[in-house]
Amino acid sequence: MKFLRVLLIFVPISIIAKFFNFNETVIFILAALAIIPLAGLMGEATEAISIYTGPKLGGFINATFGNATELIISFFALKKGLFEVVKSSIAGSVIGNVLLVLGLSILAGGIKHKTQKFNKNIIEVSSSMLLFSVIGLTIPAIFTHTMDINLLNTKYEGLSILVGIIMIVIYILSLIFSFFTHKDIYAIEEIGGNSNHKVEKGWSMWKAIFVLLLATIVIAVESEILVGAVEPMTHALGLSEFFVGIIIIPIIGNAAEHSTAVIMAIKNKMDVALEIAIGSSLQIVLFVAPILIFLSLLFSPMSIIFNEFELVALIASVFIANRVANDGESNWLEGVQLLAVYIIVSAAFFIV
Amino acid sequence: MKFLRVLLIFVPISIIAKFFNFNETVIFILAALAIIPLAGLMGEATEAISIYTGPKLGGFINATFGNATELIISFFALKKGLFEVVKSSIAGSVIGNVLLVLGLSILAGGIKHKTQKFNKNIIEVSSSMLLFSVIGLTIPAIFTHTMDINLLNTKYEGLSILVGIIMIVIYILSLIFSFFTHKDIYAIEEIGGNSNHKVEKGWSMWKAIFVLLLATIVIAVESEILVGAVEPMTHALGLSEFFVGIIIIPIIGNAAEHSTAVIMAIKNKMDVALEIAIGSSLQIVLFVAPILIFLSLLFSPMSIIFNEFELVALIASVFIANRVANDGESNWLEGVQLLAVYIIVSAAFFIV
Amino acid sequence: MKFLRVLLIFVPISIIAKFFNFNETVIFILAALAIIPLAGLMGEATEAISIYTGPKLGGFINATFGNATELIISFFALKKGLFEVVKSSIAGSVIGNVLLVLGLSILAGGIKHKTQKFNKNIIEVSSSMLLFSVIGLTIPAIFTHTMDINLLNTKYEGLSILVGIIMIVIYILSLIFSFFTHKDIYAIEEIGGNSNHKVEKGWSMWKAIFVLLLATIVIAVESEILVGAVEPMTHALGLSEFFVGIIIIPIIGNAAEHSTAVIMAIKNKMDVALEIAIGSSLQIVLFVAPILIFLSLLFSPMSIIFNEFELVALIASVFIANRVANDGESNWLEGVQLLAVYIIVSAAFFIV
Repeated sequence: MKFLRVLLIFVPISIIAKFFNFNETVIFILAALAIIPLAGLMGEATEAISIYTGPKLGGFINATFGNATELIISFFALKKGLFEVVKSSIAGSVIGNVLLVLGLSILAGGIKHKTQKFNKNIIEVSSSMLLFSVIGLTIPAIFTHTMDINLLNTKYEGLSILVGIIMIVIYILSLIFSFFTHKDIYAIEEIGGNSNHKVEKGWSMWKAIFVLLLATIVIAVESEILVGAVEPMTHALGLSEFFVGIIIIPIIGNAAEHSTAVIMAIKNKMDVALEIAIGSSLQIVLFVAPILIFLSLLFSPMSIIFNEFELVALIASVFIANRVANDGESNWLEGVQLLAVYIIVSAAFFIV
Repeated sequence: MKFLRVLLIFVPISIIAKFFNFNETVIFILAALAIIPLAGLMGEATEAISIYTGPKLGGFINATFGNATELIISFFALKKGLFEVVKSSIAGSVIGNVLLVLGLSILAGGIKHKTQKFNKNIIEVSSSMLLFSVIGLTIPAIFTHTMDINLLNTKYEGLSILVGIIMIVIYILSLIFSFFTHKDIYAIEEIGGNSNHKVEKGWSMWKAIFVLLLATIVIAVESEILVGAVEPMTHALGLSEFFVGIIIIPIIGNAAEHSTAVIMAIKNKMDVALEIAIGSSLQIVLFVAPILIFLSLLFSPMSIIFNEFELVALIASVFIANRVANDGESNWLEGVQLLAVYIIVSAAFFIV
Repeated sequence: MKFLRVLLIFVPISIIAKFFNFNETVIFILAALAIIPLAGLMGEATEAISIYTGPKLGGFINATFGNATELIISFFALKKGLFEVVKSSIAGSVIGNVLLVLGLSILAGGIKHKTQKFNKNIIEVSSSMLLFSVIGLTIPAIFTHTMDINLLNTKYEGLSILVGIIMIVIYILSLIFSFFTHKDIYAIEEIGGNSNHKVEKGWSMWKAIFVLLLATIVIAVESEILVGAVEPMTHALGLSEFFVGIIIIPIIGNAAEHSTAVIMAIKNKMDVALEIAIGSSLQIVLFVAPILIFLSLLFSPMSIIFNEFELVALIASVFIANRVANDGESNWLEGVQLLAVYIIVSAAFFIV
């Protein structure tokens, strides 16, 4: 995504703005614009490293670092006690991947190609995994909201930790599934996790490692700036923190990856586009969410109780993802409909 | 549906009954019996016109006028301020189409033919469109009901109008999809909207236009009579307006069309039967519902917040429609089960 | 399941323990251990009888007596007024079959066989029937919980009885479907109801009838002992009756049948394993639940209003069952995910 690199100019600008105490809303926007190309660079560097390490370790590195940006932003949000933002950004990433990214990909691809076919079998494995995982992840929340009585929080912390452990175990088992016991399913496409970024020629191993480390450090700095501006910005603009978490942060964290999905769809590589959107959702649920549950124990335990809006939007999204996958083909109208649901959900979140 | 024409005798009878101030329950029943054959005539006339205009314009005319009866009844209900009846009849039309019409069609067809196959690909386009549209249409309601706080109504009016605009845009795009970009999918069957009424020979263009205009005027008169009798009848019989809207009005407005679906199923034309039931639901959600939202602005804004019963029944119905479509074949037992769900839903609505 | 027969030693032990007024928790465990092999023996005897009666009557006997153990336990629970236990054990049987039994079967089978295929068409008939039936069975409960006002119980008793009648009618129609109008679908596999227990050689007709009668009587005795110990045990251990009903009783009642499903999966007979799990759920919903509604009229009417937890878990289970069936194939990771959902659901039930 070379064209995104021009946005790197916002790295120094945002730091200067922070230094001179600019308006917090301006700072938030500048930091957001700085993070977008950094996340893209991180993806390219990870991809380049994975080529040198061979497909298995490379696939693992890709899968694990694919959501590093979201993890870093969420870490600083946890540190600031912005639990609502962290939880809603987990839900928002899934919703954004399934409705916005998949919608844009299917629409953009569908405008160029009348009907696009994809390998149903691969996508069904991911999409049914996403369904089961989201059911597992949301059961504590569903149970909480359907109860009249208020239970002690400690019980729910325990349940959240159990859910976190189960999710991470499934994540590890799914890597074993993809890279060992059933690696042949994925062989045709050579899809390993998120390894679908186009690799630029001329990345040496050392350049890649250097870029990865540098990008990680700068993202951390920018994330702290971004997160620091959330509260004042929401007050100034009358937005809810919830809206920032569920709509804005997922777009920032995933912009680079998302543009890859759209470009792949235009190139008629729908398998890759779907795998980015659905696979990325799966990593959020099975890897990012549990890591954040565990990290929260460092500060103050965050129970993984999504609110009703997040629940409805999450569950609707995974059903839609399953329906799309089930077809084995897509057309532009399907893309329009996913985007329509995304717009309605966003508008509903906005007025909450 | 020539046999329904005998019911036209109820047109003068109902007007006389209204004139002499008969019991309101009797007036309601007489007006209902009068509307059934009028809706059928309107369908036949529309169909005949569409033959003269050629398939594209004809398909559009069919799709647009297919639900004219429901629109006219709802217009007078809106005018009388019967918002509950209007909203519940939108939900009830979808439920009735998916559970009652599809159930009767599959049962009647399945008794004559052991296993009936249908073109999965066409039906899947409609049924997944129905799923996405209903999710979009119901998100404002789902969000409202899961919230503790009471929001200002104005916010929800705005959201309802946004949903209305998005639905009508998708409706227009779906016509472009069916009649332009992807018209070949439908080519085999020559299904255009609801154009599945058997066309009687000997309908001249002018006769068709005359019948259409006349039927529209008479339906408008009968609808005003019908709607005027709703409140006194519900009081007299102890029925809820909700029950009238969700069960009775959809049966009246769609009886002619519904009998077509059953006859097509018996003739083993399951594609046509399913397309009538699912396509008709789709038009309600994408065309009738937004038009009613906009029309309500003339009187007093109606927010498209379905109640919990409507929500549950709507969502259950679209999942069932998707499950049925997914099979690619049907048998009598499936029909029995759809009818069983319809009976249980109706009984639950009755005792609410 | 010959290896389970060693557990028959617990029949005399549990009776002695009851006679000498042992600790109630100990009595509960002993009675549970006694019921497991008795249920297995009952299954084998039913199976043996069905061979002598020919496939049609045999299939009917199998289908009807397949859940005799659960019926007997529930009868004594009804008699003791433990309505919560009865209702939650209905929900728990479906959840246990779909998540625990199917999960264990798919995992055990998947460890030995890389990818297991099954006849999608047969399984889809059962799984979509299960979906429709569970929607029908739960509509009264969904409606009740989404209402603010408290309705008179008598209305819900009437609705429960209507649902019971509809379910039993569908059950009878489904037997007609399986054994008469569409018997050829099942012909390849010779699956009739639950007739998948391996038949031991050397069972004469009379031996089978004698064992069946004896096992029924002893199960009745043990069930009364078991049910009598539920209340004191739950108090002693701090468990809820709800947890006993939804997790523990279904495991006891189905252990023998469940081990058959797992063994079939290991032998790569996935059709049989799935048919046991899904078919058994179907019998619970269509046969056991209505019989219990009718039986409750002998004591005090039990309305079939599941609580919110049961609802969520039931509906999630049938969607998962449909998703699994839709694939037409299974692998070990899918088994792991079903078990993960079961563990999370059980933990959530435990802390309620």
